[in-house]
Amino acid sequence: MKEIEGGVTAAKGFLAGGIHAGIREGKTKKDLGLIFCEVPCAAAGLFTKNRVKADPVLLDMETLKDPHAQAIIANSGIANACAPNGMKHAMEMQKIAAESLGIREDLVLVGSTGVIGMELFTESISKHMEQLRNQLCSEPSGSDACAQAIMTTDTVKKEYALETEIGGKPVRIGGISKGSGMIHPNMGTMLAYLTTDCAIEPHLLKKALKEACDQSFNRISVDGDTSTNDSLLILASGLAKNPCITDEGKDYEAFRAMLNTLCVNLARRMAKDGEGAKHLITCTVSHAGSEEEAEQLAKAVIGSSLTKSAIFGCDANWGRVLCAMGYSGVEFDPGKTDIRFASQAGRIEVARAGKGLSFDETLAKKILSEDEVVIEADLHAGNAEVTCWGCDLTYDYVKINGDYRT
Amino acid sequence: MKEIEGGVTAAKGFLAGGIHAGIREGKTKKDLGLIFCEVPCAAAGLFTKNRVKADPVLLDMETLKDPHAQAIIANSGIANACAPNGMKHAMEMQKIAAESLGIREDLVLVGSTGVIGMELFTESISKHMEQLRNQLCSEPSGSDACAQAIMTTDTVKKEYALETEIGGKPVRIGGISKGSGMIHPNMGTMLAYLTTDCAIEPHLLKKALKEACDQSFNRISVDGDTSTNDSLLILASGLAKNPCITDEGKDYEAFRAMLNTLCVNLARRMAKDGEGAKHLITCTVSHAGSEEEAEQLAKAVIGSSLTKSAIFGCDANWGRVLCAMGYSGVEFDPGKTDIRFASQAGRIEVARAGKGLSFDETLAKKILSEDEVVIEADLHAGNAEVTCWGCDLTYDYVKINGDYRT
Repeated sequence: MKEIEGGVTAAKGFLAGGIHAGIREGKTKKDLGLIFCEVPCAAAGLFTKNRVKADPVLLDMETLKDPHAQAIIANSGIANACAPNGMKHAMEMQKIAAESLGIREDLVLVGSTGVIGMELFTESISKHMEQLRNQLCSEPSGSDACAQAIMTTDTVKKEYALETEIGGKPVRIGGISKGSGMIHPNMGTMLAYLTTDCAIEPHLLKKALKEACDQSFNRISVDGDTSTNDSLLILASGLAKNPCITDEGKDYEAFRAMLNTLCVNLARRMAKDGEGAKHLITCTVSHAGSEEEAEQLAKAVIGSSLTKSAIFGCDANWGRVLCAMGYSGVEFDPGKTDIRFASQAGRIEVARAGKGLSFDETLAKKILSEDEVVIEADLHAGNAEVTCWGCDLTYDYVKINGDYRT
Repeated sequence: MKEIEGGVTAAKGFLAGGIHAGIREGKTKKDLGLIFCEVPCAAAGLFTKNRVKADPVLLDMETLKDPHAQAIIANSGIANACAPNGMKHAMEMQKIAAESLGIREDLVLVGSTGVIGMELFTESISKHMEQLRNQLCSEPSGSDACAQAIMTTDTVKKEYALETEIGGKPVRIGGISKGSGMIHPNMGTMLAYLTTDCAIEPHLLKKALKEACDQSFNRISVDGDTSTNDSLLILASGLAKNPCITDEGKDYEAFRAMLNTLCVNLARRMAKDGEGAKHLITCTVSHAGSEEEAEQLAKAVIGSSLTKSAIFGCDANWGRVLCAMGYSGVEFDPGKTDIRFASQAGRIEVARAGKGLSFDETLAKKILSEDEVVIEADLHAGNAEVTCWGCDLTYDYVKINGDYRT
């Protein structure tokens, strides 16, 4: 498996683009993106578990009852959630793209991210659709433009692609994403769009996507708020010409491994670019009784406002880590738990068997001053290990979210 | 029922005091408090559900197996949680107070709040015990000193007292508290100590305390972190000479009503003084299918970092309110839900039947600029109504918690 360039345009058959269509007045940022495949693709999607679902989410869920698609059109600025005429506008968006691309409407998936409650008038989309279609390109610059178009409060573009050999053929996969989570995404919504040229049956594509999502996007958190619009979509063109994956054998495993790596990479980037974040916080819980317990514990740690604030202050306040594990709901033995902090600058044990150790505060501060900080909790109980990702809580998080609408 | 002065010294028989004992070096703040009753009292306690429990919590749970007590000694600065020799020091603290007051050790309850993991050496407590005992007083100033002694990051002292007539006698109840929560308390721990001169059987005292706690301290949240030390204790001296309450009749109801009012008052104060808070956020969910559902919805709203940040910015971002309700886990119908913001400055409806209304942004800003802001969500589904309290998320929260230990 090797890293390659090109994001969603890395795999064979895919083109992408992004433009400023003026979805929200008075801005110049790109706000309308498009991904298109030369051929119809196997497709799968996973969506927010929030009971309040944006209309584009509801429409995609309906569209994917037949698991095939050929295009994804997405806007930023307005979420089209809890908004007047939401379903009407989502369907218009689908229709505008289908007509422009000359494909059936039910082959177009739609996505929106931005402010909840505002109406998404589609005039600006229809007015700019031809411009967007003409800009579609299979070069990395196409993926780039599309990744920019779906950004809201994101400070960096998230894009990644990989190649591996499956059934004797080079197979590629790539993706773009925005926002910061799936279980606990931030306001700006998580959108992640993946493309691959792997030939794979739709039900296996869905299964692999679910597994990868559970181990990546579902293991990050920025602020505990699950958005109304979260969507993870994948299109598989089959143009790599590998023997189509029809069972869970060696080829499926190779595809799954590549998909997992892609999703973990994008998920980490989202956590690191959490609103206002200065640190990526990785929490690894090891020697737990089960994977479920390890995940619940690690999520409590990365979700704790107190732990997040401590990391912002580069303060080795391990008591908050153990405290968060304590209210996670998992029945573990705090009296057996060791806690360590690590980063590129070193590694330090701060608690053993649930009690504080005296440690070098200067070294601890140095370790926690790095961009990427690891919190390790060793339960000495079983063999399960899980890693989750989050970010610190900063003044800027509050600033960004204190007046997002205006 | 009327408001009176005196906090924990309002009820007959109670004395209190607080001093600087130097629990943590180099500070002058009062850090050791004591409540004492002239006679042994019926006693009850409720404690953190965190799996990591501080040793003073474990000791109190043991002590209250016989539901009687006569004194509470509590320190701030060091939490005596996950700390070396924690139980030994908690028991020493209990013994030092018992000897000084001339009562049995098992009539003394203990409490600690502060940094997790540091050892609580009791030399400073024994050295200052006589000074503290000599300072005990039944005037409001005694309650005052004790309330100050248990404060950590609190910016205001929380104290309240009430009087009502039960069984033909004036009965008083009062309390002090610190910190900001029970289900979701902040780092500084919630400690709440209540005293009453009501004559009531211990099992009914416990029952009333549990009910009052569920409707007050368990309905506030500052940051979603449940501490290792949370404790709510009540002592009932019986010196009001009312006929002892032995069943759930009229007198019990009168006592319960007074206890509820006291707890709601203290809980609101804690939420309002949440770390760094600029606004008290009250969320009332009405016309819900059940009280449980209403509570779960209201808690999701006051717990949402995005809603908290929006209120900090006085931004009427109601989409975040509905979004939080959506991920609460409650099966409600967003399409029937109305949302309003209210305060002393007025009241404004911002969404009806799940869709945004166009509203006067200037008025909305004015409403949200008040210290106390109410978020109302009307489900139009049933008859249950619940109110929960929280606070906004501010730069200062991050600042306070970014470097708490030093």
